[in-house]
Amino acid sequence: MNQNRARALAQIRVVLSRPSHSGNVGAAARAMKTMGLSRLYLVAPQCEIDGQARALSSNALDVLDGAVHCATLEEALGGTVMAAALTARRREYAAPLKWAREAAAEIVDTALAGEVALVFGNETAGLSNEELALCRLPVMIPANPDYSSLNLAAAVQVMCYELRMAALAPAAARTGRDEPATFEDVQRFYAHLEQALIDSGFLDPANPKKLMPRLRRLFDRAALEREEVNILRGMLNFFQKAGKS
Amino acid sequence: MNQNRARALAQIRVVLSRPSHSGNVGAAARAMKTMGLSRLYLVAPQCEIDGQARALSSNALDVLDGAVHCATLEEALGGTVMAAALTARRREYAAPLKWAREAAAEIVDTALAGEVALVFGNETAGLSNEELALCRLPVMIPANPDYSSLNLAAAVQVMCYELRMAALAPAAARTGRDEPATFEDVQRFYAHLEQALIDSGFLDPANPKKLMPRLRRLFDRAALEREEVNILRGMLNFFQKAGKS
Repeated sequence: MNQNRARALAQIRVVLSRPSHSGNVGAAARAMKTMGLSRLYLVAPQCEIDGQARALSSNALDVLDGAVHCATLEEALGGTVMAAALTARRREYAAPLKWAREAAAEIVDTALAGEVALVFGNETAGLSNEELALCRLPVMIPANPDYSSLNLAAAVQVMCYELRMAALAPAAARTGRDEPATFEDVQRFYAHLEQALIDSGFLDPANPKKLMPRLRRLFDRAALEREEVNILRGMLNFFQKAGKS
Repeated sequence: MNQNRARALAQIRVVLSRPSHSGNVGAAARAMKTMGLSRLYLVAPQCEIDGQARALSSNALDVLDGAVHCATLEEALGGTVMAAALTARRREYAAPLKWAREAAAEIVDTALAGEVALVFGNETAGLSNEELALCRLPVMIPANPDYSSLNLAAAVQVMCYELRMAALAPAAARTGRDEPATFEDVQRFYAHLEQALIDSGFLDPANPKKLMPRLRRLFDRAALEREEVNILRGMLNFFQKAGKS
């Protein structure tokens, strides 16, 4: 076992957004623990963490009881440097997706440098477009095209298994990358970019079209570093100042 | 997709020996179907295939209803050329075991030549030594050594996922990506960006530091698309115009 990469598992949050069935929450906690993950985040659960959740968590009650409850997905992503989101379908303006195995390798690499969230949507509705837009990396589990509906806890199990495999596999090193930007840094950059584009007249807030989603997709793909966000925001300040002078 | 290897999935039986919980049987059927497996065998189930099994099978009722019921494991293995068995622990006299991923490759290879069984034991007791002795290949799912107890349906999900991956490694396609920008497009964008940064005062041509190399590194990493270059250059035009007005 590669001890260095194994510690990545402790830096990965499993975020369940609006889960409906308490049994799934318990089963997800168990699935996590079998693979050595322990940090569960629950966003506005639509169910009680009741006896069924506890029964299905089996001996992973520590994971279930230690779950962090959040009101919004933004809150659950606070402090992370990367958010990956499970999705069952391709979406037009989402970032290019990765398959589970390839995504797990990237998540583990990134988790060596900072906290990473792996987000799962509601059993029926999945993730909203707004939620997905907060996540840099859409992930799909390869499945039967005629019946691709994995149970929520089963999807958590497969992803946590792939994360364990990636963490314990030989290092592929995060070659030449600097400190990653945090979720908050990146969101502030997007807000700044949007304002600068409005100031310049390029973006009409009354008719925004798909400009910001397209730009987010581009920068999400690049996985911004902290210093790059500083440079980009400095650049925007100068563009804005030049416009006002 | 490799059609030849894909047909291996139809030659693989999932055998549940003496399952205790009907919900697990239903969830196992669902897990199989999501990965394109359909041949379920039940050996002396200790539970009814009741409403809970049907509910948890979700839309995999065809798999559940098509299950072959057997009185003994020998019967369930009839006609197979290989039996692999999931086990959660090493046993002194068992054959040398393989990890899930490596075993899946061997199972798929073998299934191209004949029927293969993948056997899962009872939720509490696992497989008996007698049952294990009927199986040529013991298989383990790598798990947390402090808590290796996967739920039965979760173990079926992981193994069927590995079998699908072994049978048809997903095409590594440029998923969800649009037409890439040409080298020339990208170079023109960099020149435009540099000029806009000089115009705004952010970049001092007499003392450029490492600004352009850093920005190129960022955008190179994103592998720009043609349309993105158009958007970025449109944006720069507006920033420049705003500065001159």
